[in-house]
Amino acid sequence: MTSSIDPSTSPLLTDLYQLNMVQAYLDRGETGEAVFEFFPRRLPARRGFLLAAGLETALHFIENARFRPDEIAWLEQTGRFRRNLLDFLANYRFTGDVHAIAEGTAVFGEEPMLRVTAPLPQAQLLESRLVNILHYQTVVASKAARMVLAAPGKLLLDFGMRSAHGAEAGLLAARASYIAGFAGTATVLAGLQFGIPVFGTMAHSYILAHDDEMQAFEDFARSRPDNLTLLIDSYDTLAGARKVVALAQKLAADGIVVRGVRIDSGDLIASSKEVRRILDDGGLREVQIFVSGGIDEDVLASMAKAGAPIGGFGIGTNLTVSSDAPTIDCAYKLQEYAGLARRKRSTGKETWPGRKQVWRQFSGEGRMIDDVLSVEGDTQDGTPLVVPVIKAGERLAPPPALETIRQKAATTLAALPEPLRRLDPGFHYPVTPAEPLRQLAEAVDRRGR
Amino acid sequence: MTSSIDPSTSPLLTDLYQLNMVQAYLDRGETGEAVFEFFPRRLPARRGFLLAAGLETALHFIENARFRPDEIAWLEQTGRFRRNLLDFLANYRFTGDVHAIAEGTAVFGEEPMLRVTAPLPQAQLLESRLVNILHYQTVVASKAARMVLAAPGKLLLDFGMRSAHGAEAGLLAARASYIAGFAGTATVLAGLQFGIPVFGTMAHSYILAHDDEMQAFEDFARSRPDNLTLLIDSYDTLAGARKVVALAQKLAADGIVVRGVRIDSGDLIASSKEVRRILDDGGLREVQIFVSGGIDEDVLASMAKAGAPIGGFGIGTNLTVSSDAPTIDCAYKLQEYAGLARRKRSTGKETWPGRKQVWRQFSGEGRMIDDVLSVEGDTQDGTPLVVPVIKAGERLAPPPALETIRQKAATTLAALPEPLRRLDPGFHYPVTPAEPLRQLAEAVDRRGR
Repeated sequence: MTSSIDPSTSPLLTDLYQLNMVQAYLDRGETGEAVFEFFPRRLPARRGFLLAAGLETALHFIENARFRPDEIAWLEQTGRFRRNLLDFLANYRFTGDVHAIAEGTAVFGEEPMLRVTAPLPQAQLLESRLVNILHYQTVVASKAARMVLAAPGKLLLDFGMRSAHGAEAGLLAARASYIAGFAGTATVLAGLQFGIPVFGTMAHSYILAHDDEMQAFEDFARSRPDNLTLLIDSYDTLAGARKVVALAQKLAADGIVVRGVRIDSGDLIASSKEVRRILDDGGLREVQIFVSGGIDEDVLASMAKAGAPIGGFGIGTNLTVSSDAPTIDCAYKLQEYAGLARRKRSTGKETWPGRKQVWRQFSGEGRMIDDVLSVEGDTQDGTPLVVPVIKAGERLAPPPALETIRQKAATTLAALPEPLRRLDPGFHYPVTPAEPLRQLAEAVDRRGR
Repeated sequence: MTSSIDPSTSPLLTDLYQLNMVQAYLDRGETGEAVFEFFPRRLPARRGFLLAAGLETALHFIENARFRPDEIAWLEQTGRFRRNLLDFLANYRFTGDVHAIAEGTAVFGEEPMLRVTAPLPQAQLLESRLVNILHYQTVVASKAARMVLAAPGKLLLDFGMRSAHGAEAGLLAARASYIAGFAGTATVLAGLQFGIPVFGTMAHSYILAHDDEMQAFEDFARSRPDNLTLLIDSYDTLAGARKVVALAQKLAADGIVVRGVRIDSGDLIASSKEVRRILDDGGLREVQIFVSGGIDEDVLASMAKAGAPIGGFGIGTNLTVSSDAPTIDCAYKLQEYAGLARRKRSTGKETWPGRKQVWRQFSGEGRMIDDVLSVEGDTQDGTPLVVPVIKAGERLAPPPALETIRQKAATTLAALPEPLRRLDPGFHYPVTPAEPLRQLAEAVDRRGR
């Protein structure tokens, strides 16, 4: 195991066929301008919209991907590749253009979230990892947005690093859910890497390591008095709540304030109500109840409906693997090469050819009405969503702050048509292919390839 | 964005509460010996067994996790932590013991896949990332094993890096599926990092970039003649197959042999039969049909039943996100501290206390019969599965070769009771808690904490 290679930066995190194709392109001098677009083919069940996320991570990768000498040396010793490919890779840096729909925008099936315009070998080389980056963050942001909509005004936190699929997923789930409106994450590295607020108090192991739950509470409070939240369900949740009441006065004498209690098991609606009563009766009206364990958007909605007195939620597995829809059917497809629009016509996987733009119309109140999908040069009513972000290999503007992206997402959620704010929308947001796009597709098909 | 930190090696990829607890432990001198165990709580629906994977990755993390000076400096400037914690982290290296069940072993609910015995702060610190590593690879290996069982004798390849959740998942899915019996992966970095055989030919973009499909086939064949597989479904699968027949003779004259064709869309059973006929009629009986797109273990089983003439399968999304069961309910729990066994009694989340061992009985023919779960010091019939792997911070043996682990997994699959080899087992493999374990749990409960 070569442990010094970071899979999140190595351009060898790609499919072998990309290198095979680039070898073949170089052998034949097929280095003309190619246009690839990344788009979701369709939305998963129960999803009325997707929340685009991952663009800044993707652009960082596009700008910074370089093959290291030891990676080139390894490729060479496999005996699979010729010198022209190895030299191309050793000198590789992206020199093309990128257009994209901003992170935090609602997107729908067939809408081009990102377009790469570059010499064919360069654009081909990016495919696998670009899809890997954009797909996952969009999966998580879209799931998180449902939770945000189901729990208005509640503190939602990402607790899911441990059950995320690998290291980078743990980190990027924090980013994607924060964009969607989560208040923060438990993942420390997301604080360092992205400046996301990091939350966390204690686990059951802390309680279990002590011979007495009350003593554990007090020790922890004295050591970690800031934003103090005590986990009360290790043995008996209601008894735990009563201990918090008993302890709070003693701690208050030393200036330590209990801010919250956490419940992580059992019937969360019933126990939150009982715990609320115990806390209120004990004079701890300001202490918030925080729950975790098996939370998803349906649980959030049922808790809101039941009037559970819960201030915040720690959400793990269901967020970071998007348990009901862990994938979105996405593609990165060649839409134009050497000046000619192209389309794949594989059964059930036909794509719209050419460079595309999405025009979105909004009502006077700022609500989304419908989208039109057409060719780039067309003019349609509404706001064009696909904008240039990299020109000749260089960013056109500094990366937006994460807070700016998060604000954009909040604006998006506020602008959704009412049915799309429901967990079961029962409504297909209209995305209409315009006549010039249909004509281009027909022309490509007539050309027969 | 600090791009220089690799999330797969940074010990800051953890939950904040771990650091909070370690701070509190250090403040109170709670550095006695702790025993944590990692175990699946229960199996997902349709899973009759899990295939343990990820141990070597986990041990590598345990041995090598170090806090970098810039990570310590960042923690310090958050203002959350005191000098004693920062010094502890700066000097941190693991000095404890680890016991584990070997990778490639079948495991069941409540069986301790890994046990950490170390000073409490050390053992606590490992939790989040250990779970992250062991959980994901076990998810993928368990899914892959079902595919291997559903498609005996077929070439199965991991094509799922792009839809895996982030970079590390893409890489580790290759490892976990290879352990389970896949023949290899498309992911190049998995070849470099783990020595896994890497496969790959061409994508639709290669065909689409050419004005003529036949010319694309020929160009590619001349550039990449080794193990040549042509993708024939970009426009019309049967027409594509006929072009391969026409081309094969021409290529043969130059010593280039077509080894396979790939179909990635449409009705794969029907089209594979038609393509087989075209190839056979064209004298290409040796050319294998390889398919991809939406494959999972149920598709594999239905193809086997239909007698589809398919030699191999590229499996993407359904493998790398384990789409029907993207998570397994797992835990890493404190089982003993300072010489006293402990257990959590949270509703629905009770755990067995103490250091545990699993004894597995096999029939004369080597088939698994049942497991007994008991305390470590007990003696039961059968083979004990939990073995020491790290002692006082040092590996007891060099890491086994990946091929050895893969062979172990093959032996495991051959030893499964017959119902567990089915996709819907309808059978719970017996795991019996032994009397000494029950007595320990009762004693812990009587002690009241």
